[in-house]
Amino acid sequence: MNPDSNATPDQLLFTPGPLTTSATVKQAMLHDAGSWHFAFNDRVRWIREQLLSIAEVSRADGWEAVPMQGSGTLGVEAVFATCVPPQGKVCVVTNGAYGERMLRMLQHLRIPHIALRALENEPPDLSLLEAMLESDPAITHLAAVHCETTTGILNPIAGIGRLSRRFCCLFLVDAMSSFGALPINFEEACVDFLVSSPNKCLEGVPGFCFVLARRETLLANEANARSLSLNLADQLRGFEKNGQFRFTPPTHTLLAFEQALREFALEGGVTARHQRYQANHRVLLAGLRQLGFQPYLPPNLQSCIITAFHCPADPRFNFAEFYRRLSEKGFLIYPGKLTDAETFRVANIGHVFEADLRALIGAVAEVQQAMGFDARPAPPTSDDLARFQSVPLFL
Amino acid sequence: MNPDSNATPDQLLFTPGPLTTSATVKQAMLHDAGSWHFAFNDRVRWIREQLLSIAEVSRADGWEAVPMQGSGTLGVEAVFATCVPPQGKVCVVTNGAYGERMLRMLQHLRIPHIALRALENEPPDLSLLEAMLESDPAITHLAAVHCETTTGILNPIAGIGRLSRRFCCLFLVDAMSSFGALPINFEEACVDFLVSSPNKCLEGVPGFCFVLARRETLLANEANARSLSLNLADQLRGFEKNGQFRFTPPTHTLLAFEQALREFALEGGVTARHQRYQANHRVLLAGLRQLGFQPYLPPNLQSCIITAFHCPADPRFNFAEFYRRLSEKGFLIYPGKLTDAETFRVANIGHVFEADLRALIGAVAEVQQAMGFDARPAPPTSDDLARFQSVPLFL
Repeated sequence: MNPDSNATPDQLLFTPGPLTTSATVKQAMLHDAGSWHFAFNDRVRWIREQLLSIAEVSRADGWEAVPMQGSGTLGVEAVFATCVPPQGKVCVVTNGAYGERMLRMLQHLRIPHIALRALENEPPDLSLLEAMLESDPAITHLAAVHCETTTGILNPIAGIGRLSRRFCCLFLVDAMSSFGALPINFEEACVDFLVSSPNKCLEGVPGFCFVLARRETLLANEANARSLSLNLADQLRGFEKNGQFRFTPPTHTLLAFEQALREFALEGGVTARHQRYQANHRVLLAGLRQLGFQPYLPPNLQSCIITAFHCPADPRFNFAEFYRRLSEKGFLIYPGKLTDAETFRVANIGHVFEADLRALIGAVAEVQQAMGFDARPAPPTSDDLARFQSVPLFL
Repeated sequence: MNPDSNATPDQLLFTPGPLTTSATVKQAMLHDAGSWHFAFNDRVRWIREQLLSIAEVSRADGWEAVPMQGSGTLGVEAVFATCVPPQGKVCVVTNGAYGERMLRMLQHLRIPHIALRALENEPPDLSLLEAMLESDPAITHLAAVHCETTTGILNPIAGIGRLSRRFCCLFLVDAMSSFGALPINFEEACVDFLVSSPNKCLEGVPGFCFVLARRETLLANEANARSLSLNLADQLRGFEKNGQFRFTPPTHTLLAFEQALREFALEGGVTARHQRYQANHRVLLAGLRQLGFQPYLPPNLQSCIITAFHCPADPRFNFAEFYRRLSEKGFLIYPGKLTDAETFRVANIGHVFEADLRALIGAVAEVQQAMGFDARPAPPTSDDLARFQSVPLFL
């Protein structure tokens, strides 16, 4: 029943969460803490303060960090469920699966919405967004994904945020896979809500998410919250009342996160983490390019977090076998999630370093040799181009 | 920052979750697993099968176990959000805080509902419930808490379930703090949905919850689900599609739960765990009674999971100080949550044994001596009785 026996080391995760964490982060979970106990609640308070400090926003300016039990997706949906008033309407700027997921949340919550779609390998067209905001004054909220994990594309949140502010909307940024590694200027990007996860660039373990927002913004529509579990305002009031989560929190995950935040500070914060991931990414890109693989995105759109590569056109390539052979060598990569191209993905975040990326590339080279494939992708066909042109830009 | 240094052992938790877990359960979290990896998904499948087996229901009869990221509360709300049709109405049978919480969920979800309230120290009146069901044919669902953690009272789910079946309703049981230790006959109690947590009698760590229900019941109102994160049908479809959670699962928590389930089976399943908790409970009750403390509930209503004790009437008693002094000796107890009486609570579930309960009682005796209080409660006043009589039975 236990395929990862203690005798062999864990596989290294080149996936965008769960990711490889340090031994000390995991060891922090060797303790049972009482969620009602004052010592534990001091630690939760410290975590919430650290998150504000990483974001460079302050409680003095009204900002709060609200951790929520559940996956990152729950955090994004919690903002919609709690903070969009009954007469609100959300415009989702999307070019990937996580933007599309926001639309599914809004459908479920019966919140009026509209999508501004871009192709998966293109940033959103801000002039189209401006035209949409001009023509549809019902829009009250904008939402966008900072680093769209579908492709690794980095979206222009500052441009979207400025438009949001100009049209008196509130702006939600899904910074799941960027917060902690990519600098985000809240003021410049006019961020009203930022959602992220302990299990991405902050290198904790999965089990909760957190929302950063101004207290008054969180509480403004409190009476209209659409779900108790998703009620961010009630969660904040819980912390204010007695420092506690309203419902049983994942205590071990929180202890791991406390340790992860300490290690984050020791490494040198956002700047140092960004540099390490950039170095990892350079090694990854150079190594796989040398083997013939081609990244899906042009360099100017590509983040240093996760990279989508075209699948080789050679019929001797087969993703399932490629994946399995790499996993047997101790490396887990990620499948593609694109609608318009066959890709696989490699993340280089987590407790991994240049040497780990070099080890991965060595393993890929061995697998490539064993399977005997040429790594070059197929050239784009006229079918591909037609499909590109048929993507609806407005929903 | 770290009050629980590695040099001192963790405090023992006499709280109803989080609770003390075995060292081996915690050690299972020392691994990073890939949530897309087939080996991990095999383990998730095994966990789901074990849960059905503990419940003594089978996939052949249509039953499924659906783990959901988030607290136990989320699991209960997910049933309401996914499985109550737009024209549905829920009757909540409540005698404590967790029943009241169900009502808050239904308010948030804008689902029509009605409450049948009993006093916190009384089981619900089934003849009143029958009358309610007869007079209100709009009711489609009944919901009740098996062991109400507010007091430790054990509710008559079989009686409620039989009425539910007779009136063609579906029956949701919140078995958060009973599943795994108290035998539940699904057939006899006419259970349609059971929600519980890994972090109660199954002695895992907190971070997700699970729902047991028939596949067709889960999918019946799929198109009307009120939230994506709470969409149980979509979660089940995700498992069916590729064995995976739809969104990042708490991988470490799941590894801990796999180990907890192995230890549960080794101990002897529900029967053995029930016996251990009964033995723990006998030691607790005898010991605290001997010191003068008095349990809130009569013995015939009291579960062997958690016990509420009256706070001593002596002004030299003060809960905050009592709690702090016990915590300094390494024991965490739980405050009261009652509306009609001053109580504190002691749970005896988790990886704790008779000797641990004896150690707790020894510590209570020392603290009592140091604080110099008489442990006897105040006799009930006519005010108390008046308050009892004024509790509205119907909402």
